[in-house]
Amino acid sequence: MTARNIAPATGKLGVLLPGMGAVGSTFIAGVIAARQGIHPPIGSVSQMANIRLGKRDEGRNPLIRDFVPLADLDDIVFGGWDPLSNNAMEAAKTAGVLQGSDLDALSKEMEGIVPMDAVFDQRWVSRLEGVRVKDIPNKWDQAMALIDDIAKFKEENDCDRLVMVWCGSTEAYQEPSDVHASVASFEEGLRNNHENIAPSQIYAYAALQSDVPFANGAPNLTTDLDCIIELAKQRGVPIAGKDFKTGQTLMKTILAPGLKARMLGMRGWYSTNILGNRDGEVLDAPENFKTKEVSKLGVLDGILQPEVYPDLYGNIDHVVRINYYPPRGDNKEGWDAIDIFGWLGYEMQIKVDFLCRDSILAAPIVLDLALFMDLAHRAGESGVQEWLSFYLKAPQAAGETPAEQDLFIQQTKLKNTLREWMGEEPVTHSEAG
Amino acid sequence: MTARNIAPATGKLGVLLPGMGAVGSTFIAGVIAARQGIHPPIGSVSQMANIRLGKRDEGRNPLIRDFVPLADLDDIVFGGWDPLSNNAMEAAKTAGVLQGSDLDALSKEMEGIVPMDAVFDQRWVSRLEGVRVKDIPNKWDQAMALIDDIAKFKEENDCDRLVMVWCGSTEAYQEPSDVHASVASFEEGLRNNHENIAPSQIYAYAALQSDVPFANGAPNLTTDLDCIIELAKQRGVPIAGKDFKTGQTLMKTILAPGLKARMLGMRGWYSTNILGNRDGEVLDAPENFKTKEVSKLGVLDGILQPEVYPDLYGNIDHVVRINYYPPRGDNKEGWDAIDIFGWLGYEMQIKVDFLCRDSILAAPIVLDLALFMDLAHRAGESGVQEWLSFYLKAPQAAGETPAEQDLFIQQTKLKNTLREWMGEEPVTHSEAG
Amino acid sequence: MTARNIAPATGKLGVLLPGMGAVGSTFIAGVIAARQGIHPPIGSVSQMANIRLGKRDEGRNPLIRDFVPLADLDDIVFGGWDPLSNNAMEAAKTAGVLQGSDLDALSKEMEGIVPMDAVFDQRWVSRLEGVRVKDIPNKWDQAMALIDDIAKFKEENDCDRLVMVWCGSTEAYQEPSDVHASVASFEEGLRNNHENIAPSQIYAYAALQSDVPFANGAPNLTTDLDCIIELAKQRGVPIAGKDFKTGQTLMKTILAPGLKARMLGMRGWYSTNILGNRDGEVLDAPENFKTKEVSKLGVLDGILQPEVYPDLYGNIDHVVRINYYPPRGDNKEGWDAIDIFGWLGYEMQIKVDFLCRDSILAAPIVLDLALFMDLAHRAGESGVQEWLSFYLKAPQAAGETPAEQDLFIQQTKLKNTLREWMGEEPVTHSEAG
Amino acid sequence: MTARNIAPATGKLGVLLPGMGAVGSTFIAGVIAARQGIHPPIGSVSQMANIRLGKRDEGRNPLIRDFVPLADLDDIVFGGWDPLSNNAMEAAKTAGVLQGSDLDALSKEMEGIVPMDAVFDQRWVSRLEGVRVKDIPNKWDQAMALIDDIAKFKEENDCDRLVMVWCGSTEAYQEPSDVHASVASFEEGLRNNHENIAPSQIYAYAALQSDVPFANGAPNLTTDLDCIIELAKQRGVPIAGKDFKTGQTLMKTILAPGLKARMLGMRGWYSTNILGNRDGEVLDAPENFKTKEVSKLGVLDGILQPEVYPDLYGNIDHVVRINYYPPRGDNKEGWDAIDIFGWLGYEMQIKVDFLCRDSILAAPIVLDLALFMDLAHRAGESGVQEWLSFYLKAPQAAGETPAEQDLFIQQTKLKNTLREWMGEEPVTHSEAG
Repeated sequence: MTARNIAPATGKLGVLLPGMGAVGSTFIAGVIAARQGIHPPIGSVSQMANIRLGKRDEGRNPLIRDFVPLADLDDIVFGGWDPLSNNAMEAAKTAGVLQGSDLDALSKEMEGIVPMDAVFDQRWVSRLEGVRVKDIPNKWDQAMALIDDIAKFKEENDCDRLVMVWCGSTEAYQEPSDVHASVASFEEGLRNNHENIAPSQIYAYAALQSDVPFANGAPNLTTDLDCIIELAKQRGVPIAGKDFKTGQTLMKTILAPGLKARMLGMRGWYSTNILGNRDGEVLDAPENFKTKEVSKLGVLDGILQPEVYPDLYGNIDHVVRINYYPPRGDNKEGWDAIDIFGWLGYEMQIKVDFLCRDSILAAPIVLDLALFMDLAHRAGESGVQEWLSFYLKAPQAAGETPAEQDLFIQQTKLKNTLREWMGEEPVTHSEAG
Repeated sequence: MTARNIAPATGKLGVLLPGMGAVGSTFIAGVIAARQGIHPPIGSVSQMANIRLGKRDEGRNPLIRDFVPLADLDDIVFGGWDPLSNNAMEAAKTAGVLQGSDLDALSKEMEGIVPMDAVFDQRWVSRLEGVRVKDIPNKWDQAMALIDDIAKFKEENDCDRLVMVWCGSTEAYQEPSDVHASVASFEEGLRNNHENIAPSQIYAYAALQSDVPFANGAPNLTTDLDCIIELAKQRGVPIAGKDFKTGQTLMKTILAPGLKARMLGMRGWYSTNILGNRDGEVLDAPENFKTKEVSKLGVLDGILQPEVYPDLYGNIDHVVRINYYPPRGDNKEGWDAIDIFGWLGYEMQIKVDFLCRDSILAAPIVLDLALFMDLAHRAGESGVQEWLSFYLKAPQAAGETPAEQDLFIQQTKLKNTLREWMGEEPVTHSEAG
Repeated sequence: MTARNIAPATGKLGVLLPGMGAVGSTFIAGVIAARQGIHPPIGSVSQMANIRLGKRDEGRNPLIRDFVPLADLDDIVFGGWDPLSNNAMEAAKTAGVLQGSDLDALSKEMEGIVPMDAVFDQRWVSRLEGVRVKDIPNKWDQAMALIDDIAKFKEENDCDRLVMVWCGSTEAYQEPSDVHASVASFEEGLRNNHENIAPSQIYAYAALQSDVPFANGAPNLTTDLDCIIELAKQRGVPIAGKDFKTGQTLMKTILAPGLKARMLGMRGWYSTNILGNRDGEVLDAPENFKTKEVSKLGVLDGILQPEVYPDLYGNIDHVVRINYYPPRGDNKEGWDAIDIFGWLGYEMQIKVDFLCRDSILAAPIVLDLALFMDLAHRAGESGVQEWLSFYLKAPQAAGETPAEQDLFIQQTKLKNTLREWMGEEPVTHSEAG
Repeated sequence: MTARNIAPATGKLGVLLPGMGAVGSTFIAGVIAARQGIHPPIGSVSQMANIRLGKRDEGRNPLIRDFVPLADLDDIVFGGWDPLSNNAMEAAKTAGVLQGSDLDALSKEMEGIVPMDAVFDQRWVSRLEGVRVKDIPNKWDQAMALIDDIAKFKEENDCDRLVMVWCGSTEAYQEPSDVHASVASFEEGLRNNHENIAPSQIYAYAALQSDVPFANGAPNLTTDLDCIIELAKQRGVPIAGKDFKTGQTLMKTILAPGLKARMLGMRGWYSTNILGNRDGEVLDAPENFKTKEVSKLGVLDGILQPEVYPDLYGNIDHVVRINYYPPRGDNKEGWDAIDIFGWLGYEMQIKVDFLCRDSILAAPIVLDLALFMDLAHRAGESGVQEWLSFYLKAPQAAGETPAEQDLFIQQTKLKNTLREWMGEEPVTHSEAG
């Protein structure tokens, strides 16, 4: 195997977040805490995980960050846009994810991170009311203003490179339409203020036009759109989407591959979520839940392949519900009832109660996507980064074949891709490998 | 890749079960039902699973049983030994796993399957009282009687080949001792009626001496012993152990790799099991539970590698309990409380309630182990079959490196081993594979 | 204490069920099985429970059915109306509550129980399509036809007395309107075919006009309406409503009084139900769920008295969801997440997973309501029977003060009412009592 | 009804705690916080609950503390003995029940509460090692030293009255023996240093000899012993025992009465507890767990009356387990699997996961027992106070009939006893009451 030629990670990397709410502020707090040595960046594969090289008995097992040339945490500069918060510290306090006592040591640095005024439109997120919003009516002008923001941020912060990770809200459901068919139609739509163009799309457009890789942490279409994919390839910039894989869907993509590995049949999977934060409020609006539901429902079929296994998975009732329940606060609780069957058709049941924390699970994904997107860019990649499907609820395929949904195949793909780029043999776990 | 030379699966395959109780009778019932087309053999990877060959977009995805030369279900002949039951039908009724209405169609064939008198010693299973037991006091003579049983069975049933799968009870806990150090010391022990030689070991000895592959479905040491491994290699016969991976441990080896994939830390895992069958009664005896506990406790360390990840997994309280609770009958309920932590050290909890059925989960493992052990034998394999670790709670390593415990690595290993034997490239899920 | 004068339970008691589906057919099957000595009528307080009389150490503790003059199970005659089933046996098979093997011994008798053609209107139950329906367009004429059915049934079956228990579906949500304000307006509405008059109301009207007590097992308004209450008093006939207390609400009225007894505070109660039967389908229609939701939401406030305990119960988020999930079949699963707080405001959580069976829990309620309503009638009672609130999700008050929701107060009320009627002292559990 | 003559609650009330660990320090912290107006004393019936007087529509519903003459929170003085902690603040910090930020406002006052040296013997609590222990070998001398402590405490703190509430550990299991048969034999045993006399018994003896009411919060025999009961009556002092009803047993005495109210049958109840505090460590020792198990197992039979209801409750498998699991810390998790059956014998299951906090639930019980025991003393009561069974896992009977275990009967008994003492009619919830 020959290693790729990857440009080194010199200088500063600006991480730009459209949306500096619960996830964004928790991400920032954790990176600062890791830099200060207060807490290791738990949950971050790029920082914490080792990667085996060669045969099992060779004993080569470096940290990923020692193996591939990633940007250093110390070289990260934070920026972004937010329609609500005055700075990252205020955002963290409002979100209520982190306890005050944990924030104290970080407050000075976090107060200095001030988001830029946002491109925001309440038509897409009816439950929020933006106050720090660009007063620019035309969408083309909004895009230009963002491009300008990006350039200024890079210069002022003396950044060598930038990446953008969408940490904003789920937008109202939409299907792709004609305006999204090509870069040309999209640009015309921007100029005409086309009603089908959502804010997240304007951010993605601005990022790619500025040669900044763009990852999409929400279930919004954004990076799935033909126009955005076309633009990413045109400009040689990586994109990745969509929807951070946290909580219940993470659990689903762990359990379903396990049940399938054993060829156990499935009759149904009922999932309910209760959460009490801003996200819960937004998703209580049916038009926003629809967007999320579509993103969540796909995973079972993707993993279980009912077309290959009709006897086992051809008749599954898959129900997903999200309920706004304020006592849960920023924490989330996911309860799953899974109905399976085995030998001679006998039925069994699994119940999973996951008392989780959404932002705590999402924050290290932001970090990993930022660092790996930057790596991919330096490695000459452009367009959809399917090898990052590991982090995403509804991963995009790079080609015709749908992307894998199975967390363990996704993990193998991620690690073997890194091995290949660095000129190492893939690990096969076979007798000979 | 060059395919191996594997002898074809011609003629009949005798499957010999020491122990024809809940698991054994359920296995037999299900194979007969599958032959009659009543139920597909759900849970059997050898029968139900497909295997992808080549690149993702090649569309080559045959059933495993169409890809490798396995014995056909129609060619299986059932036999075994049991200290309690008069025939497989009676055993099934006593076990209470299967409902009467499901057994009706199978009763004729199952009544015809009569176990031979068992080598049994209550010292090792204090809660059972054997009645169909060989009246032979000396252990060497017991071994010879079993070898004789095996030869007669083969001839009378016109079998081409045999395999043996231990489906008997968990024996009292023991550490290996001098008598187990070599084939020579073991044979001397047999002759001297050494108290450290348990019945399961005599079965394994008899099998290997008869060139019959032996798989161990209980947590008894048996196949782990130096004398048995030595004998297997000497005679060129495959062995595999130990302890069918069902229920709670199956769940554990699904969940733990998922949490580790995401580099989430763990503080503790509390597991309790309630079951009301003969197995539950046997395991209520502390000396038998000890055997099971040792087998169950190892998996977390094996998967999570605390030596590599001390920050994440260096301080786990892992508690496993089994309680005899008659209302549960043959069904089992496993409840797990898992304490994890993520970004900035924040804690989360997972509770899993698995209303499972032990014998329903174990039966297809008996089938797969029987068929794959026979395949391995025909493929020229001898000694420990580490690629079958997928099916086992405490898998044996073939060499120095401990066997993998992660269900998904085990699955990859199984499939890539089959691919290699058949001359196909291993699947790596990397961009290039 | 002086005992009341209660007419004896001579001759036959006809139990008329509007709706002979899952609940109705299960009720009938169980009564027949109890008469045949196959199964005791488990869950029936009137048949199984004892009642303590006098001081604790007097040792007087007869069965309720030996203490008060109830109709004997052998004297019950079954009848009713159903828009779908040809007879009770067919209904039981369609419902799938009871296993075939349990129905075999009862089939002959159950096949002989043929419901009369129903008054049915799909406008109120959009998910059902009636086939055995009276072809009478005018509502007044429908009422007259039911009165005629009742009279014929009584004569043909040689009944001494009748009671009617609504076992039909939940109707679409409605608020009381002018047509329900008095008997006069209601009768005018019947004649004018007023659109606000639902089938259940016509059944109740027909029952009362025939001097037949009427109990309402669904959350439909029916017995809550001023016109029905007025008519019941006019004619001296008992009524009781509404909604059989089963499953999750039963659990709620057990747990909430316990938490309140200890003055533990509550922040929220999230309840979700999954069920896969006809009831689940009906309640999947939002207009029918609304009726149910209103019935279910009231219990917490009724028990916890937020107006008396604002610090503890003044700010509860109470969410109730019902989801149609076919794998659950007639069984139901209710999952509750309860958030409480105690000393110094510290928070605790309770999760309850109830794998229940709706019709199994409802059937003995039908029996008890039938027998106790008949008793009340013979004891000279008329109008709302608040002492039967024990059986009902949204119990009606007899006077101004709202009815008790706490299961244990309801139980005390039921038993002390019986004691009083029979001239015994109420039990107070105080030192002197 | 005539009211009793109850002496007024003038002056200070000293509350003496043998054992100032998690429960004791949490009790003290909460009372201080309530006095400062920081938090109401949630969970305390004496402080928070109202009591209905007269008919439902009379609208008389005062707070219990306004209805009966209880000592005021401001008049409480705290004292006690502890073998480990230097003061209440240190105890609270070690216990880890309360967060540091919640303790800050209370620290000054709590630091001033210094326990006296304890009578302690590791033979009874093998997992603890006492350091602040009286260096007195003879048990009679220990008793005299405690009596001396009590007198000094009363004088130094200018107390009008005292009560003692055992908040120490569970001692090793024992059966009553001859030495416990009478006051005389017990006193002889004290002098002879009899090995069967445990420390808790010496505290109870000292309390009663000092005319101080004694309540027993642990499952130790103490107040159940004939010698202690005899002494309490002799000296006219109230006693109450045993074992604070918290967590899983509280839940059990809520649920079981509810299932029984509906005459639902029961096949089994499996209970497991995980806890990680000092209590968990102590109970991990089999001899101490035995004491707890006996206390916990009795409640189901007490409530369900299998002798009266053999069909329903004659064959219950009741299993209780406690496991030491450090990740849970002072919090406790109780998981219950309950197997019930209903109409036609059909089975249902209930699972309850209670994420509770032992000390948070126990602290208000300490307060209520202290205040009500003092009230009882002033009301002229002596011996066992059965009306306080509401607070206790294994309540003592005052006479021949066993004490009630049903939380709701216990609650009625408590309230009706108070009503009687104050000259009010008991509430019967019957139509006439």
